[in-house]
Amino acid sequence: MRTPEPAVTAAPLSPSTAAGSAGGFHPTPHEFGVGARFTLAVMADDFAEVILDALRQADASGLDVATGVVSTYVSGAEQDVMRYLSQALSAAGRSGAHVSASVHLSRGCPGGVTCAIPAGGAALHSEVPVLESTGVHCVADWALYPLADAGTDGGSADHMRDIYAAIDHARSTGITVTPDHYVTRLEGDLGLVLETIAAGWVLAGRSVQHVTTHATLSINSPSAA
Amino acid sequence: MRTPEPAVTAAPLSPSTAAGSAGGFHPTPHEFGVGARFTLAVMADDFAEVILDALRQADASGLDVATGVVSTYVSGAEQDVMRYLSQALSAAGRSGAHVSASVHLSRGCPGGVTCAIPAGGAALHSEVPVLESTGVHCVADWALYPLADAGTDGGSADHMRDIYAAIDHARSTGITVTPDHYVTRLEGDLGLVLETIAAGWVLAGRSVQHVTTHATLSINSPSAA
Repeated sequence: MRTPEPAVTAAPLSPSTAAGSAGGFHPTPHEFGVGARFTLAVMADDFAEVILDALRQADASGLDVATGVVSTYVSGAEQDVMRYLSQALSAAGRSGAHVSASVHLSRGCPGGVTCAIPAGGAALHSEVPVLESTGVHCVADWALYPLADAGTDGGSADHMRDIYAAIDHARSTGITVTPDHYVTRLEGDLGLVLETIAAGWVLAGRSVQHVTTHATLSINSPSAA
Repeated sequence: MRTPEPAVTAAPLSPSTAAGSAGGFHPTPHEFGVGARFTLAVMADDFAEVILDALRQADASGLDVATGVVSTYVSGAEQDVMRYLSQALSAAGRSGAHVSASVHLSRGCPGGVTCAIPAGGAALHSEVPVLESTGVHCVADWALYPLADAGTDGGSADHMRDIYAAIDHARSTGITVTPDHYVTRLEGDLGLVLETIAAGWVLAGRSVQHVTTHATLSINSPSAA
């Protein structure tokens, strides 16, 4: 059962509560709703075999993983979630097939089910995940959503400020960054692209409780040749 | 070139400005940034043929359409955008192949490039798109993001309130609605599922300028059998 409107409070958060220490609430990643949904689409007749093999090659240590009809849900700490995603997506890419992956990261758990954040709960400080280079090249259409509300999140909800900061961070990483309608396009090694997406998500999440990010990644596209 | 931080203003909007009449600014859908990005992933060796054939079967009247490496960009009025998406996705589904489609709708154009909304621009009232039944069954993982800011959007930014209203609307449509982590799952005819997603997006957009929504749709999944 969800907690109704868990992100809503009348009291602005102080910088110290925004660092995750509000009222002695020290959530686990699962309690804070940290995790991902992703869909691996493999454009080949043997898609089922490639997808199952890729999931088997990914290290799920520390994670709860549940595959459904539309997507696979992954719950756990940011570093573990991103390692799993990078390993699963790069394994699918190494099959040589054209792969399109839809990746949805979320932290600060308002949403469908099971949220342990108390009313007025603060943002949660996490370290930026670090990923290994994969040797797999990708292009990603990326969007970041810091879901700050009036009266919470320091009282200064300004989602474009946080988005522009994340894009500036992406430009510092060495991957190719191109603005386009609705998205920022990232191109480079899959590990570095996912690390950049995760960095924007985690950094925005240090001052905003509920932050999600979506990316569609293309690997081995014939259009890119 | 983008307009820096176009959604940010110090002045709360009155109900009349929230209806789109602020300062005599009567934007076209393109000026307001109304449109979509979508990726059709067809899990078969002849994916390129199926995708190109599906795009050819969709009516692009009134729309600007540009296909890139990762996704296809569609700009125009909500009704035209949704008709195009429904026709393209259902055509791909009628190939019989397993299709995964990533759909990203946006209105209120802060973002990468070209935004004509003046500083302090208001929300834009649009009618809810109406789609025909397609005969194609789908399951979708859906997330809605009303990106209200403090000091704009009537001064009452509360993204979960708008999300719950959209989920309540979805429950009234007759499709199957299931809450899950980070997403709401919608199942039914592809036309009705897309119409429900668009309704949540357009209705939230009547009071919030910048609203996006993401859905991953699964058609002909062997896991669903």
